[in-house]
Amino acid sequence: MKLEPLDIQPRLLLGPGPSPVPYPVRRALAEPVVGHMDPQFLAIVDHIQTMLRKVFGTANRLTLPVSGTGSAGMETAIVNFVEPGDTVIVVVAGVFGGRMVEAVEKVGGRVVCLEVPVGAAATLETLRQLLDDHPATRLVAVVMAETSTGVLQPLAGWGELVHSRDALLLVDTVTALGGMPVNVDDNGFDVVFSGTQKCLSAPPGLSPFTASDRALTHLDARKVPIPSWYLDLNAFRQYWGQNRVYHHTAPISMLYGLYEALRLVLLEGVESRYARHRQVAQALWAGLEAMDMELMVDTAIRLPSVTTVKVPHGVDEMRLRQYLLKHEGIEIAGGLQSLSGKIWRIGVMGHGARLSNMIELLAALGRGLRDQGRHVASGVEAAEAVYNRGNK
Amino acid sequence: MKLEPLDIQPRLLLGPGPSPVPYPVRRALAEPVVGHMDPQFLAIVDHIQTMLRKVFGTANRLTLPVSGTGSAGMETAIVNFVEPGDTVIVVVAGVFGGRMVEAVEKVGGRVVCLEVPVGAAATLETLRQLLDDHPATRLVAVVMAETSTGVLQPLAGWGELVHSRDALLLVDTVTALGGMPVNVDDNGFDVVFSGTQKCLSAPPGLSPFTASDRALTHLDARKVPIPSWYLDLNAFRQYWGQNRVYHHTAPISMLYGLYEALRLVLLEGVESRYARHRQVAQALWAGLEAMDMELMVDTAIRLPSVTTVKVPHGVDEMRLRQYLLKHEGIEIAGGLQSLSGKIWRIGVMGHGARLSNMIELLAALGRGLRDQGRHVASGVEAAEAVYNRGNK
Repeated sequence: MKLEPLDIQPRLLLGPGPSPVPYPVRRALAEPVVGHMDPQFLAIVDHIQTMLRKVFGTANRLTLPVSGTGSAGMETAIVNFVEPGDTVIVVVAGVFGGRMVEAVEKVGGRVVCLEVPVGAAATLETLRQLLDDHPATRLVAVVMAETSTGVLQPLAGWGELVHSRDALLLVDTVTALGGMPVNVDDNGFDVVFSGTQKCLSAPPGLSPFTASDRALTHLDARKVPIPSWYLDLNAFRQYWGQNRVYHHTAPISMLYGLYEALRLVLLEGVESRYARHRQVAQALWAGLEAMDMELMVDTAIRLPSVTTVKVPHGVDEMRLRQYLLKHEGIEIAGGLQSLSGKIWRIGVMGHGARLSNMIELLAALGRGLRDQGRHVASGVEAAEAVYNRGNK
Repeated sequence: MKLEPLDIQPRLLLGPGPSPVPYPVRRALAEPVVGHMDPQFLAIVDHIQTMLRKVFGTANRLTLPVSGTGSAGMETAIVNFVEPGDTVIVVVAGVFGGRMVEAVEKVGGRVVCLEVPVGAAATLETLRQLLDDHPATRLVAVVMAETSTGVLQPLAGWGELVHSRDALLLVDTVTALGGMPVNVDDNGFDVVFSGTQKCLSAPPGLSPFTASDRALTHLDARKVPIPSWYLDLNAFRQYWGQNRVYHHTAPISMLYGLYEALRLVLLEGVESRYARHRQVAQALWAGLEAMDMELMVDTAIRLPSVTTVKVPHGVDEMRLRQYLLKHEGIEIAGGLQSLSGKIWRIGVMGHGARLSNMIELLAALGRGLRDQGRHVASGVEAAEAVYNRGNK
């Protein structure tokens, strides 16, 4: 067996996650490991909670990172807040809505799908209709930023509507948090999870999570025990609350990384960060359109953090991505499931959301298309022009 | 809000985990993050599997790190291999056996407890009796290295016995793997999980896991769907097998750390590593006894990786630990649950299993006792003598 040390060729990560992790965050990962009950570690835990509340836009006491990836956060939300027989409306507008359906079914929830065509968003009116049809609905689950389609789901009024029916609103903010306003409290979100490897630019492995006191009242009133040991919120509350009761060993190094990532977010300022994401995304869109590429999602509901672009007719989707990775050191992604082979997904996330990265990508994309005998106009100038307009 | 960078005071970690993480492993965590579908990352994933098989002592195809801490590995074992109504014998000889009872109950298993007095181990004879009494037993779950008591559970003959009853043997090797032989295949273990923050000396956050083909046959014959989305082994098999189907984003940086930690284990050689753990533990025991301290567990079933020592009458348990942490920068742990206030737990694990660390601890322990007006003989010379004897 060969036992060679790691020798990793860096990539420019412009797919839908992981996003580029800046050096201060990687350096934080390498800090000396201390115990999970060490007072200095518990102080870090406190700071992480405070910073997470700020980025989530919430005063929720229960705000913490779940010890697993974004999917663990999703499962935490479902296993704690759905009981067998509960009616749950799940908005399915892509792969990540689809996963919530599976997770709800696994705990015995009765799923009512609010199905949305690919590339579109759900409307408040449809939700109201469904709630009328299913008055016993206990929870409404929706993805705010659907990574598989690049759609930003408008959620104005959702909290109010769902609360008026005495249900909880569960929101997947994986590809939103740190890149656009989430405003948990103002929007009336009850249960919210996210990931670290998107707009926060930390490595994957943790899932920022928050739940309102309203949600905790539902949790306390559960009739059936929480069906998971590892993702039991009542146990988390013991360690992340004042008691500090040991449940599982916290992933210490990952939490160092999250601490530093959140610190960088707040040093930049959340509003500046959101503006940067928007401005860089707009530059990318202008560049792609100048290259005659078609964007999949209408401007009104287009995510700044993930852009979906249609693969031009006759272009070999996979070959272009392999060209980018091998010759340009750039990673972008293809489509998932029904969109496989049809779209590319380009991330404008966290530390990666910079004009220079978009210029590099647009130029490389041009070379990749030429490699397949396609000659397109440059997107660089258009991207720069739009960026500079926004920068004034 | 203060936004200061991390400023971590290093500790000498001699508790029951996390253990000291050597610099090469911490440096690996800081390597550039690449995508979870990047060919160079998939090659790392392959190497991790190969190295894990070597350390586990198995040829099992399904050998991989679960994306969560050791407790996530425990839950993975239970949710995949226990179905509602299944009879499961759980050996409860401490806190970590107790958790498996809770996890089995959460998925609707019928638990038969094989209860063992604190500080003791279960016998093959008792297990045989229980299996006779419960012939429909589907799974036997046991902790090999009980971190809460410091007992090493002898498991010779267990695999054979359990298989003769057509049941599966599930073994918690959290505090064993990398510090003593586990020999999954030779011992007939079917489902095995571990942690990274003990004798492997990687940070907490991953759970090495392996399952025999025999176990997978049981999995394929399940009547009820696996009740967890995040910990669904059938989904793991897709990503960690040949297909590389995306399920959740792998915790990339943590996997870099595990790669490096496993590499260090294999460079040292597993046999040398086990011998080092034994030899250093024996030195610690001699030192503690020279200081008139009483060890809780008989030599025959005493774990090399975690030593439990009784708190001398009249000594303030917590004050001594606080003295060690504050004045000496050394972390050891107290007892859990019924052993709280009664014992200390000292880890001899991974990178921390070195004579110099034991000397440092024994001397500091002497000062800590003096701080409480207790004057004891030095343990240093006895530890050195025993270590040198073993070193000849």
